[in-house]
Amino acid sequence: MKVGNDHYRTIWIDENDPECVKIIDQRPLPHEFVIESLDKVKHAVRAISEMHVRGAGLIGATAGYGMYLAVLEAMVHARGFEYSLNKSAQELLRSRPTAVNLSWAVERQLDAINNADSNQDLIQVAKTTAEEIANEDAECCRQIGLNGYSLLQRIAETKDRPVHILTHCNAGWLAFVDYGSATSPIYTAAQKGLDVHVWVDETRPRNQGARLTAWELAEQGIPHTVIADNTGGHLMQQGMVDIVMVGTDRTTYTGDVANKIGTYLKALAAKDNHVPFYVALPSSSFDWEIRDGIKEIPIEQRSSQEVKFIQGLKGNKIEQVLLTPPNSPAANYAFDVTPSRLVTGLITERGICAANEQSILDLFPERRPSS
Amino acid sequence: MKVGNDHYRTIWIDENDPECVKIIDQRPLPHEFVIESLDKVKHAVRAISEMHVRGAGLIGATAGYGMYLAVLEAMVHARGFEYSLNKSAQELLRSRPTAVNLSWAVERQLDAINNADSNQDLIQVAKTTAEEIANEDAECCRQIGLNGYSLLQRIAETKDRPVHILTHCNAGWLAFVDYGSATSPIYTAAQKGLDVHVWVDETRPRNQGARLTAWELAEQGIPHTVIADNTGGHLMQQGMVDIVMVGTDRTTYTGDVANKIGTYLKALAAKDNHVPFYVALPSSSFDWEIRDGIKEIPIEQRSSQEVKFIQGLKGNKIEQVLLTPPNSPAANYAFDVTPSRLVTGLITERGICAANEQSILDLFPERRPSS
Repeated sequence: MKVGNDHYRTIWIDENDPECVKIIDQRPLPHEFVIESLDKVKHAVRAISEMHVRGAGLIGATAGYGMYLAVLEAMVHARGFEYSLNKSAQELLRSRPTAVNLSWAVERQLDAINNADSNQDLIQVAKTTAEEIANEDAECCRQIGLNGYSLLQRIAETKDRPVHILTHCNAGWLAFVDYGSATSPIYTAAQKGLDVHVWVDETRPRNQGARLTAWELAEQGIPHTVIADNTGGHLMQQGMVDIVMVGTDRTTYTGDVANKIGTYLKALAAKDNHVPFYVALPSSSFDWEIRDGIKEIPIEQRSSQEVKFIQGLKGNKIEQVLLTPPNSPAANYAFDVTPSRLVTGLITERGICAANEQSILDLFPERRPSS
Repeated sequence: MKVGNDHYRTIWIDENDPECVKIIDQRPLPHEFVIESLDKVKHAVRAISEMHVRGAGLIGATAGYGMYLAVLEAMVHARGFEYSLNKSAQELLRSRPTAVNLSWAVERQLDAINNADSNQDLIQVAKTTAEEIANEDAECCRQIGLNGYSLLQRIAETKDRPVHILTHCNAGWLAFVDYGSATSPIYTAAQKGLDVHVWVDETRPRNQGARLTAWELAEQGIPHTVIADNTGGHLMQQGMVDIVMVGTDRTTYTGDVANKIGTYLKALAAKDNHVPFYVALPSSSFDWEIRDGIKEIPIEQRSSQEVKFIQGLKGNKIEQVLLTPPNSPAANYAFDVTPSRLVTGLITERGICAANEQSILDLFPERRPSS
């Protein structure tokens, strides 16, 4: 997507140095746009664990490129290729324990390398696999955009004003390789000349909405308004939201949606006000094992410091300030689960389906257990 | 209530200077505890308009004391008592246009002064009336505490752990003269030895929860945990909230509740998880005219700067930092309306009633229209 007048992905191989991977460091956004070089596996590990990159798709892609760096290092390692590659793979796997795409990408690389012909260049195999993982992620998101666009188009036909979309957190191109999940239909709509306007939940405590989604939309020139997370219910009650579109960190095959904390509250308000509530996801975000999302999906608890302190710009410096009494405890649940009964539909790369087992398995019949 | 080891109200006459009114300046809390002197009407006007004081009850009390300062000034005014007093009254009335308690307090003072015997000391009349307004506010809140305590006590009987109360914004003693509305049952419970724990919504954008409610509770030694506003739904879903108690800025006689933006979302989650949702209010917060809260209560829109910037402590200095891209617009709706169907009950100084016209008028029969 666009940053200023240039087109970027969130991760790519340096065109002047094929042994260097470039990422956008998301921590100083929206105040500074910083490109970071990863030329060792340990840099890729740190980029994931310290959240220079985040979002399911991008974590997977970074692990894929990380394994390419791992092969480069293993080639010249004193203790041998196998030893070095496996050590790197383990370090990547440990960098963010709950991200499903991470282990999937590492294992896909290990399979490709282990199954290579003896006369194949392993560096080339790992590089090609990393590029494939990234390209597939981008292509899934592009297809989600086309499928979700149809929903926006249908709403637009009934309105003589912009289509108002509410979104939560950042399910944008910064969370994937390109396009994003929940934002992709919005970018497609804008490209096709449909008038849209996005209500951006700031998404406390880490403010991925106010920091990242607002920045993405501003760079693409898409009309948007940042709101406190408290605001969506009132907007829906007053007819100011036409559709809610969010992403997901994990969705069960029964349609329960784990996503950034606060998503459930917006889904309740959407139901109460007859506003359609859609979840956009590449099929890699489905959990094909778990039946009851509310009981079974583990919810990550993060540091209370993320609630007590906040980062922002003071003059031209990024600073952290304390928001609470110094000794007041704070709790930081990172995700919640929206039960399928509140979800109007799921927008995937294959099409749109209802949030229930039968509709999901109709779209992904290869996942149907053979009985 | 307690601040450190001392007892304070939010407003009082200086014991060493009967012509000076003292308030707690709430703007630098929780980082600094600042007492401010008001010895001119214009200071009282500024304290209300610039939100050194806020909250329905305290705005009314400040207007009452402001009128006492107005009488002191009018006594020595070159253009005469009447001219000066009316000018001051008008300035106070304009200081915060939507606060019902403000006009009520100013008019109560004007009535008292105009109806005084010719041999009464008008300064004493205004001072006594100001003290009455403040004392009545405190007494209403104390009664709300006793009535609401019964609810907490009943929950405690069924649990072998602390009663978990979730609250939104600051309906604490800082919003009134003493005790608060939603916090008063909590303070009563703590005093009577009932184990309670409070989930404190930080309440973006102005963070009255993280700044004021957390500070109040910390000073009284009451266990509490600050959470992002996004968190309550997850907590209720997981059985970690026993009761929601909030305040209100205006409640219709049919039971619709206007309160700080985000209250409606918590009420939806409470309903969805069978958690009782109570609103605590002195009867002065009822609107006896409006039938449909969602259609008829006007919702104040405040500056977008309150969303884009946030105040916190950096080192030992209070600073503002920018949270969003500099050019991203933001919207700031200050209140929302929770429909009566989501409200379990109303805790008033007279007792607890259901959130519907008949129950409310049964408790306040003098408000029943004589047909």
